[in-house]
Amino acid sequence: MKIAVIGFGTVGSGVVEVFYKNRDKIENKAGCELDVKYIVDIRDLSASPYADKWTKDFNDVLNDPEVGVVVETMGGINPAYDFSKRSLLAGKHVVTSNKELVAAHGAEFIAIAKEKNVNYLFEASVGGGIPLLHPLYQCLGAGDVTAVAGILNGTTNFIMTRMIEDGMSFEDALKLAQDNGFAERNPAADVEGHDACRKIAILTSLVYGKHVYPDEVHTEGITEIKAADVAAASAAGCAIKLIGRVEKTDNGLVAMVAPSVLKKTSPLGNISDVYNGVLVRGSDLGDVMFYGKGAGKAPTASAVLSDVIDAVSAGGNIRKLGWVDAAHDTLIDYRNDNTAVMIRVAACDKEKAVELFGCEKEIEGVEDYAFFTPVLNGYKLEELKEKAKEQGVELLCALRVLDY
Amino acid sequence: MKIAVIGFGTVGSGVVEVFYKNRDKIENKAGCELDVKYIVDIRDLSASPYADKWTKDFNDVLNDPEVGVVVETMGGINPAYDFSKRSLLAGKHVVTSNKELVAAHGAEFIAIAKEKNVNYLFEASVGGGIPLLHPLYQCLGAGDVTAVAGILNGTTNFIMTRMIEDGMSFEDALKLAQDNGFAERNPAADVEGHDACRKIAILTSLVYGKHVYPDEVHTEGITEIKAADVAAASAAGCAIKLIGRVEKTDNGLVAMVAPSVLKKTSPLGNISDVYNGVLVRGSDLGDVMFYGKGAGKAPTASAVLSDVIDAVSAGGNIRKLGWVDAAHDTLIDYRNDNTAVMIRVAACDKEKAVELFGCEKEIEGVEDYAFFTPVLNGYKLEELKEKAKEQGVELLCALRVLDY
Repeated sequence: MKIAVIGFGTVGSGVVEVFYKNRDKIENKAGCELDVKYIVDIRDLSASPYADKWTKDFNDVLNDPEVGVVVETMGGINPAYDFSKRSLLAGKHVVTSNKELVAAHGAEFIAIAKEKNVNYLFEASVGGGIPLLHPLYQCLGAGDVTAVAGILNGTTNFIMTRMIEDGMSFEDALKLAQDNGFAERNPAADVEGHDACRKIAILTSLVYGKHVYPDEVHTEGITEIKAADVAAASAAGCAIKLIGRVEKTDNGLVAMVAPSVLKKTSPLGNISDVYNGVLVRGSDLGDVMFYGKGAGKAPTASAVLSDVIDAVSAGGNIRKLGWVDAAHDTLIDYRNDNTAVMIRVAACDKEKAVELFGCEKEIEGVEDYAFFTPVLNGYKLEELKEKAKEQGVELLCALRVLDY
Repeated sequence: MKIAVIGFGTVGSGVVEVFYKNRDKIENKAGCELDVKYIVDIRDLSASPYADKWTKDFNDVLNDPEVGVVVETMGGINPAYDFSKRSLLAGKHVVTSNKELVAAHGAEFIAIAKEKNVNYLFEASVGGGIPLLHPLYQCLGAGDVTAVAGILNGTTNFIMTRMIEDGMSFEDALKLAQDNGFAERNPAADVEGHDACRKIAILTSLVYGKHVYPDEVHTEGITEIKAADVAAASAAGCAIKLIGRVEKTDNGLVAMVAPSVLKKTSPLGNISDVYNGVLVRGSDLGDVMFYGKGAGKAPTASAVLSDVIDAVSAGGNIRKLGWVDAAHDTLIDYRNDNTAVMIRVAACDKEKAVELFGCEKEIEGVEDYAFFTPVLNGYKLEELKEKAKEQGVELLCALRVLDY
């Protein structure tokens, strides 16, 4: 069987390199001979060692019956959407690392794949090389998942780690991340939480079986986090992390992405630098966590190739991993959430703030004044924030406190 | 399809309870109707809510063509070996949590299952409820695994945690574990490392494809660890953990179970109490870790039921998860290992010890004298220990230092 790789960027070139490095092993696991026949890219690859496989024309792939697996590593919605759909309709397996596309059109592709008796697999779209979607679906299958929470974006975790460990400002930490190649020149997708949002949307869809679209997930980024917020959390033995999560509440499913306060010794609170981690809480299972480098050329390529093996070796027995399309009604309003909140105010606002929010625990050894509230409902929190404003109390920060 | 549960102890009764609690979900994932038809136990279950399913006679299961899946949760080698073998030979899937049996006879059962076109699945045998064996086999399939290292036994991790966090002696921590039901009255299998040994033997077999038997794995327990060793490690920012591991060295595969020194902030060094964690290091993948409660009734039952779903829904497409039998030659001598060593000696022996082993880094703020050696080969370490003895230098501790 032949493979076509669409998009020869970091992940795509990694897939080709890792494939040829481990070809024997991959063929052995797949149970058949495999080769990369096409590399599709609009850029000129005539100087690449794989020039003989290069084509600019996706139709070469589509019209070649030898190609059984299309690896889509272009990223973005267009033309990846079109190429993926046409590949599936032509009866070819599609394997992707493209979280944006999976989050936007996963249900559609999963349905087409099912109809055409092929696989649409996307392990690499969340957590890069960390085996996550397969074990989530397969091994957690028997029980009830009450929550999934994760550090889903390595760039923001690197930035938060520098703020926590080195006391850097957000701006300085972002610059360091950019200088080290961990952040794009335009870092919005990372620091504003959109990347984490797509990933928690995919995880939610998979775990609860219905497509949850990114625009349904309330999303806050880390751009407003101050060094003083990080210091206050530290003084309480906590770290601020960008957490994407979905939780079963009494009223329904709540999902959001937001900078949150976690104990430094907790499973997620302890994850530093560019590492990612996803914690799954099951009614029978307790907490399990998957941890690793969430990105990088070789880890992501490795996850893509595992999916290629899986697609090919599953044969006619198509994976059930997936979900169905749904109206925008799988989640309920994020304000149904119930958490304690870490509040920081100027020292002069201490009394008013404590009277409004209630003080469960004062944080000692900080500039200004910081404290933890009792557990508050999200609607109540909003109402109290409004009241604080009316009373002239400026909340320097108000971050949810989580136990992951 | 009907299920028979053999052995109604903690795990077996958990399987039945969790099955009925989540039956709809399980049937939905399995794609067929399922029910527990038999519970086999030599004890009298006539007063149990499941009395109508109870039989003392395993032949009832064997002779009933309706039974497609046998869940073996007896533990121990006999009669579990006999029951499992006869079930597989009769063309029934077998799912087990019995690590002792898998470690001793896995290859034989896997071969019979293959021949009979059924599954022998044992996810719950390592790491309890943590999805581990499936993702290891399936998602890490493309690359080279250079090491697997884990905290594989919750009892010893609880004991070590109490020694680390509360400064308890081994004896007091063991008693506390027994009082809390985390340790057996006869704790040898845990504290002498045999349980962890079986689990790393299973992991090694799975990752490297050949059956490694527990007696091939060099095993040291935690019974000789002193509070002063823990204190010395702490002074260096490290924790002592019982680590089972297998590593690719230049000469071949080395596996062992031994109390080891890890940085407290490292992925495994940070795992406390009864939690387990397994770190997998891949050439392409980097480090990934799986973490969770390694034991407990509901988590283990949950893992068993995931295997039941998997066995049933895989249909004719039998899982390749497994390995082949092998002579006792998959591993090389554990002394081919290369690590730094944490040495503790009486203050009066300081100079002699440093001259013998070499001092890479002195540990400050400890009673006696403690230091890290440079990286030493295992044979060299043994030779130096012998020399120390000849020179009258008593090594109060000599523990390998690992980077997991």
